[in-house]
Amino acid sequence: MNETDLAFASIATIGELFRKRELSPVELTELMLSRIERFNPQLNAYITVTADVARAQAKKAEAELCAGRIRKARLDRGLLHGIPISLKDNIYTAGVRTTAGSRILHKFIPDQDAPLVTQLKQAGAVILGKTNMHEFAYGVTSNNPHYGPVKNPWDRARIPGGSSGGSATAVAAGLCYGSIGTDTGGSIRIPAALCGVVGLKTTLHRVNEHGVIPLSPSLDCIGPLARTVDDAEILSQTILKVENTKTPLARGRKLGRRLAKLRLGLPGELISDAISDEARQPFEAALRDLRRLGAEIRDASIPLLQETELAGNRIAWAEATRYHQRSGWFPARTSEYGEDVRSRLEAGTKVSAVEYLEALEVRDKFIQQFRRAMESQRIDTLVLPTTPIAAPLIGEETTRVGKVDLPTRALLLRLNRPANLAGVPAISVPCGFTPDGLPVGLQLIGPANTESRLLQIASAYEHTHPVSLPPDFAA
Amino acid sequence: MNETDLAFASIATIGELFRKRELSPVELTELMLSRIERFNPQLNAYITVTADVARAQAKKAEAELCAGRIRKARLDRGLLHGIPISLKDNIYTAGVRTTAGSRILHKFIPDQDAPLVTQLKQAGAVILGKTNMHEFAYGVTSNNPHYGPVKNPWDRARIPGGSSGGSATAVAAGLCYGSIGTDTGGSIRIPAALCGVVGLKTTLHRVNEHGVIPLSPSLDCIGPLARTVDDAEILSQTILKVENTKTPLARGRKLGRRLAKLRLGLPGELISDAISDEARQPFEAALRDLRRLGAEIRDASIPLLQETELAGNRIAWAEATRYHQRSGWFPARTSEYGEDVRSRLEAGTKVSAVEYLEALEVRDKFIQQFRRAMESQRIDTLVLPTTPIAAPLIGEETTRVGKVDLPTRALLLRLNRPANLAGVPAISVPCGFTPDGLPVGLQLIGPANTESRLLQIASAYEHTHPVSLPPDFAA
Repeated sequence: MNETDLAFASIATIGELFRKRELSPVELTELMLSRIERFNPQLNAYITVTADVARAQAKKAEAELCAGRIRKARLDRGLLHGIPISLKDNIYTAGVRTTAGSRILHKFIPDQDAPLVTQLKQAGAVILGKTNMHEFAYGVTSNNPHYGPVKNPWDRARIPGGSSGGSATAVAAGLCYGSIGTDTGGSIRIPAALCGVVGLKTTLHRVNEHGVIPLSPSLDCIGPLARTVDDAEILSQTILKVENTKTPLARGRKLGRRLAKLRLGLPGELISDAISDEARQPFEAALRDLRRLGAEIRDASIPLLQETELAGNRIAWAEATRYHQRSGWFPARTSEYGEDVRSRLEAGTKVSAVEYLEALEVRDKFIQQFRRAMESQRIDTLVLPTTPIAAPLIGEETTRVGKVDLPTRALLLRLNRPANLAGVPAISVPCGFTPDGLPVGLQLIGPANTESRLLQIASAYEHTHPVSLPPDFAA
Repeated sequence: MNETDLAFASIATIGELFRKRELSPVELTELMLSRIERFNPQLNAYITVTADVARAQAKKAEAELCAGRIRKARLDRGLLHGIPISLKDNIYTAGVRTTAGSRILHKFIPDQDAPLVTQLKQAGAVILGKTNMHEFAYGVTSNNPHYGPVKNPWDRARIPGGSSGGSATAVAAGLCYGSIGTDTGGSIRIPAALCGVVGLKTTLHRVNEHGVIPLSPSLDCIGPLARTVDDAEILSQTILKVENTKTPLARGRKLGRRLAKLRLGLPGELISDAISDEARQPFEAALRDLRRLGAEIRDASIPLLQETELAGNRIAWAEATRYHQRSGWFPARTSEYGEDVRSRLEAGTKVSAVEYLEALEVRDKFIQQFRRAMESQRIDTLVLPTTPIAAPLIGEETTRVGKVDLPTRALLLRLNRPANLAGVPAISVPCGFTPDGLPVGLQLIGPANTESRLLQIASAYEHTHPVSLPPDFAA
C-alpha cells in the first residue's frame, strides 16, 4: 500500500495493518504530520498541530499494541487505538491552546481535557491537532479572519462550509482519519457535504458537551466527521459511550436486505423550491439508489418545518450573545471579533425575551410534531439533501438558485436547522457530484437516539458507489 | 358552640363534630353561605359563589360521613371531608367560570377541573366558590378593577395583599375553612401576612399546576391559606399527595422539644434596612418566642439574595407577557386590562432575551448558593418577616419606612421573591400586630421539599400565642 492509499485507508484497514505488524502508529502519525506539513499551508485546515503530543501518543499506542511477545504488557484499546485524528478547536485540550477560531482566545490554554477528549484518549486515539473553524462556531463559511480561510480540497477557491470546516477539510484531504466537530445549525453536516465526507450530528446532549465552548447550549451537538460511515461509527461509538467499541455493527448484505423494510420520508415542502438543479440531480440519483436497496420512499409531511428557521435563529442569536456577554467579551472587546460574528452578536441583543420564549415554544411543539409525524406516517428516517447548493466561492454572499439570488448563509443552514431544533440525530453522507465536480451530501434525519439506525442506512447507501477523493490531495 | 365559634373553628374540630353527629356538612355549608351573603358585599372576597354545587357536595359528604347504622354506605374520606373551602379564581373548575380576576375571561367556563381540584373533591371538600384576586395574579394589592377591590377584614380601607387576596380575606373573615392560592413572588404569603392567616408556598412543581392559569411558569407555585398551621397542613397534604391524610403530624409538647435542635438563620442583609419599626417589633418578639422554644437563631449569609429581585422581575415580566401574547389577548385586547397589569405586560415586551437568560443564570446560581449556604452554615430554615410593612391603604403607591417613601409593591415583594427564585417552600404564619392593630407575618423558608418541617416549626411557634380574629367578623 503506497503512502497515499495509506493516508486514505479506512480506520478498520489501518487497525488490521497495526495488528498484523505491517504498520505502526508511529509511522502512521509521521505520515500524517508530513502530509499536514505539506498540504496544510494550502488548506488552512489546522490552527494548531500538536506534533509532539501526537508522537508521544503514537509511541504509547505502539508500545501497547505491539508489545508482542510479552503478552502482559499488551493492551488493545480497540478500533481507535493508534488512529490519528483531529479535534475542532472549540474543544478543550489540556495544555494545548483552544482558540475557538477567535482572536479573543488566541492564547487560551485549558488545564483540562473535555470529557470527550478523555474518552478518545482512553480509546487510544492520537490527537494530531486542533482544526480551524468559523470564529466561535458562529457561521457556515470557516472563512476565518484570524487564522485564514479554510479552503475546500475540491476547489480551493471555495469554502469548505462550516463551522467545522477545518475538520471536514482535514478529513477530505487525508490529513487525519477522522475529526470531532460541533453542530448548532448544521456545522458538522454542512462542511461534511461540501467536502464530500461523512458527518454525524448526534442527539442533543447524548455526547457530554462539557469542555466544549458553546454557541447556543439549547442547540449545540457534537459528532464525528470521517471519510466513511464505518469510520464515523467508530468515532461516535467512543464518544457516545456505546458498550461494544471493538467491532462495528454488522452490515453489508445483511443491511441491504434490511433496507427493504425501511420507510424513508421525503419532506417535500422543505426541499421543493430552493434547491439548485445541480444539487437536485445527485439527490434524485441517491433516491433511486435507496429504492434499489429496497427502501420505500414516501412523501412526509412534517408540521412546523418552515417555522424552525426563525425559531432556531432567535434561540441561537440570543444564547450566543448571552454567552459572550457572560464571558466578558461582548461588547467589551467588540473590535477583536470578525465583522460577521460581531454583527450576529449585535443581532442577538435585539431579540426580545418574548421572542425567545416563543421560539422555545415553537421548538417544544416541533419536537412533539416531529415525533408524532414520524410515528403516524410510519417513517423511519427523513431523507433530504444536506444543502441545496454545492460549495460556494469564498466570499460569496448570495447564490443563484434557479432564477433568484438567495443569501448563501441561509441556503446552507435551512435543511440542517430542523434536526437541531428537534434535538434529533442526522447524518450527511456523500451522494455524488455536481457537473462542476463539487461534492454534495445526502442527509438522513431520525428520531432521538437512532444514531445506530442512521449509520446503518448511510452505510448501505454508501456501498452503492465508490468513495471519491479530492484529486489534488489523493494523487 | 355558637355560630361564630363554629365559623372560626379548626378543621379538626369540625371533623370531630361531624363524626360525633353534632354537626352536619350541610348545616356547616349553609352557615358559610349565609356568612358569605352577609359579609362578602363588604369584603369582595368571592367573585363567584357556587352555592348549588357546594350544597350538593355537602349533601354527598353528609351521606357518606353520616350514613350511620348501615356501615357499608359509610365512607370517611379523611380530614377534609365535608369541609367548606374556596379556590382562587385562576384555578380551573369544571362548569364554574374561572375569571383569573380578569375581564378577558369573565365568561370563561372550563370543562375540566384542575387536577388539584379533583384531589380536593376526592378528599370530600365542599367548594364554596372562587375567590377574588389581583387581575391575572399579576400584582400584590387585589385591588381588582373588574370585580371590585378586595378589602382587608382588619381594616376595610386597606388592601388584603395579593394576588390571592380574596382567599386570605375569606379565610380571615370566616367565609371558608381554607383556600388554595398561587404564589409567583409572594402571592400566597403576602395576603396571608396582611390578613393574619397562614399561607404556605410549596416547592416549585410539587403541586400539579396543570389547569392553573399561569403568571410565570418558572416561578408559579400553589399552596393553601388557612387560619391555623394545622388547617394549612390538612389542605397541603391533600394537594401534595402525602400518603397519610387521616391525621396531622404529631406536635404540641413533642415539637416544643424538637425546636431545641433547630437552627434558624436570620438573613440580616435582606432585612436590615427597609423594614418598618411597627413590623420589626412583632418580628423581634417572634424571635424571642422561637428562642424560648429552644431554637438557635444565628446570622445567615445567603449570597445573591439582593440580586433575586431584578432576576425575578425579569423572569416574571417576560414569561407573563409571552403567555398573554400566546393566548391572543395582548396586545389585541389591551383596553380590557386594568392599567397596572397592562403596564406590566408592556414592560415585559421590553425585557431582552439576553436579560432573560442572565436572569435564569442568576436563578440557577441562587438555587445552588441557597442550598450550599444552608448546608455549610447548618441552617434548617431561614426566619424573616413576610413583609416589611403591614397592610397599606387601598391605592397607596408608596409607603414610608423610617425616613423614606418606598414603592409599596416592591416592599411587599422583596422578602418573598427569594423563595420563588430558589423554588423552595416558605410559610407565613401570623406573628402579632402593629400598634395600629394590623397583623404581620413571620416567614420561614426551607430547602426544597421541606414543607413538613416548615409546618412543624410554624405550628410550634403558633402555639406560643392565641390566634386572633378580625373583630368585625368574629363578633
